[in-house]
Amino acid sequence: MTDVLDLAKRLIAAPSVTPATGAVFDALQAMLEPLGFTVHRFVRGSGPAGSDEAPVENLFAIRTGTGPRHIAFAGHLDVVPPGEGWASGAFEPEIRPSPGGDLLYGRGAVDMKGAIACMVAAVADVPADAGTISFIITGDEEGPALHGTRALIDFMRANDHAPDLCLVGEPTSVNRLGDMMKIGRRGSVNMWLTAKGTQGHVAYPHLADNPIPRLVAAMAELDALVLDEGTDWFQPSNLEITDVEVGNPAHNVIPSEARARLSIRFNDLHSGVSLSEKVTAICARNQVDVRPVISGEPFLTPPGDFSAMVSAAVEAETGIAPEPSTSGGTSDARFLRSVCPVIEFGLLNATMHKRDEAVAVADLAVLARIYARIARAALES
Amino acid sequence: MTDVLDLAKRLIAAPSVTPATGAVFDALQAMLEPLGFTVHRFVRGSGPAGSDEAPVENLFAIRTGTGPRHIAFAGHLDVVPPGEGWASGAFEPEIRPSPGGDLLYGRGAVDMKGAIACMVAAVADVPADAGTISFIITGDEEGPALHGTRALIDFMRANDHAPDLCLVGEPTSVNRLGDMMKIGRRGSVNMWLTAKGTQGHVAYPHLADNPIPRLVAAMAELDALVLDEGTDWFQPSNLEITDVEVGNPAHNVIPSEARARLSIRFNDLHSGVSLSEKVTAICARNQVDVRPVISGEPFLTPPGDFSAMVSAAVEAETGIAPEPSTSGGTSDARFLRSVCPVIEFGLLNATMHKRDEAVAVADLAVLARIYARIARAALES
Ligand SMILES: [Zn+2]
Ligand SMILES: [Zn+2]
Repeated sequence: MTDVLDLAKRLIAAPSVTPATGAVFDALQAMLEPLGFTVHRFVRGSGPAGSDEAPVENLFAIRTGTGPRHIAFAGHLDVVPPGEGWASGAFEPEIRPSPGGDLLYGRGAVDMKGAIACMVAAVADVPADAGTISFIITGDEEGPALHGTRALIDFMRANDHAPDLCLVGEPTSVNRLGDMMKIGRRGSVNMWLTAKGTQGHVAYPHLADNPIPRLVAAMAELDALVLDEGTDWFQPSNLEITDVEVGNPAHNVIPSEARARLSIRFNDLHSGVSLSEKVTAICARNQVDVRPVISGEPFLTPPGDFSAMVSAAVEAETGIAPEPSTSGGTSDARFLRSVCPVIEFGLLNATMHKRDEAVAVADLAVLARIYARIARAALES
Repeated sequence: MTDVLDLAKRLIAAPSVTPATGAVFDALQAMLEPLGFTVHRFVRGSGPAGSDEAPVENLFAIRTGTGPRHIAFAGHLDVVPPGEGWASGAFEPEIRPSPGGDLLYGRGAVDMKGAIACMVAAVADVPADAGTISFIITGDEEGPALHGTRALIDFMRANDHAPDLCLVGEPTSVNRLGDMMKIGRRGSVNMWLTAKGTQGHVAYPHLADNPIPRLVAAMAELDALVLDEGTDWFQPSNLEITDVEVGNPAHNVIPSEARARLSIRFNDLHSGVSLSEKVTAICARNQVDVRPVISGEPFLTPPGDFSAMVSAAVEAETGIAPEPSTSGGTSDARFLRSVCPVIEFGLLNATMHKRDEAVAVADLAVLARIYARIARAALES
């Protein structure tokens, strides 16, 4: 089998803090073309670095088989900033021993350059005529994600390349490789609350109108909301007030404005719009304005053929059946769900986004074999 | 009678933004010594400019009479910063006509260099042997007031100079000179509330502990508090939440701490300590910490001989009896109350602390005559 460890090291060695462009895509292209893939790359965005419109690169690669089925592997080559204090260079892949076996260190080792290396090694092991395989790889999953997977979906649709099934390689395993897959994700909406009043002196409250009590009343009502009790595959929806801000340094002054921000992670009983309306109604009673920004709707690929396929592949290589879960944050699966059934499965997430991110070297080979089994099963289905 | 307008101009012409020292005290000393007053001046504080321990000057002047009674005039020579946009120099006293008569412009015109000029003119008109008159003048009433009137009280006590009655010259008149005197002031306490929790990701709320709901619950309870319905001479006590602060820029992060600040203006049914205990009990139920800072206890000089004396003097010169009030902010009367009965009466407060602060030239002469009447009546009482 292809040396998946070498592939992972080559991807990690190309720094690609969000939004990624250039060298890391060159590296992936150089891996895919020898395997018979046609590689399409395009850059979107032309704003200054650091802005939401900064350039981001995307890659769509496809190897058309003779069979009727098409499975896509999806993921991202961008990584979160490494931060300080690494034991070795974040972009200098290094193997160091540990009691459980060798570990490969580097930003992206698990999230998710390691998994992309496994995808490449996997497809190298699948006969080219078994069916169509594609790679949907963005350079902006960790950032604003405005010009990433959404742009790739537009490209696929325009070129009639939409897959039948999609496997996203996010690090879903928790305690050991194979213990969890994601068959859905909750939706996410953030809302900004503003209460306006009239500034004045605390000694003359009748001449002022303090907006804080109205905001407090709204927040108390929102905090008492029970959105639901959970569904078959989702935990209960949850609302968190994440910030409150008045910014009034003067002890004896009643402020003219008070602001808060909240974040709701919600299941398939709600939509971003239904929750925005619910919160807005509560706030309106308290004369508080609401500005909602919907980050993603919930999605679910109900347990069935595809999840059984993934589960069987994982169990064959690891001996355990992955728990189907919808927990955790959002991922680009929220976009891909509009194209076809999506399941996420990948490496251990213990070190993702952390200092000294690392993957067990042994896990890379196992995951490559799992991905190969999934591809073969999907193309035969 | 002494040219009170000239005295006011001389005081305004000496810039004295809090904390005041030097020239403005020289000017007052030069006015009082020819009238037979012994002047004691002392500077307290040795910290850097801008700190609470910056140097501040105080002046105690006394003219001992043969009679047994002693009345003190109290006030401050410091002023709040002038700010921008004055039509003439804030420290260049200028007289300009208005439809209601000439106005004298300058920072401190009403708060309260104008009133101190009236006190000087008044005592010039009272025979030296009528009784003892003193001036209790600080350079730090508008600032932290740590080393101001409190230090003067210490000085008076140490030298056996405590007066029988004290008239504070704060600008108490509202619509026309004479319409209001202060026979008391509410107390004031500020409290800082802190709720601590555990930071985490909004997608994993069970691993975090959001402190905002506890702070919101405490604030909702505090906002619903009815402290009292007011008393004979005081309006109801009032609590205002003046600031809330979390400072969490990350939309998907549950913060570890939330803070709020509140200000209570309270009447003679409460003390700073009793309110601190009440708020602390409510906050403790919600696991919110409280740090109270008491700025002043309420005081009341119940209507009686002294208020009748002031009222008669005002009515004799203006034709109206001043309403006895306890409204508004705090003043140094909160310290002087521990020495003797205190009443506050002075110029119109419409322009105090504002741009283009001004006093009606005609009011200065009237107030000087009122103060002279009060002094004579007090010394004969
Ligand atoms: Zn990822
Ligand atoms: Zn004042």
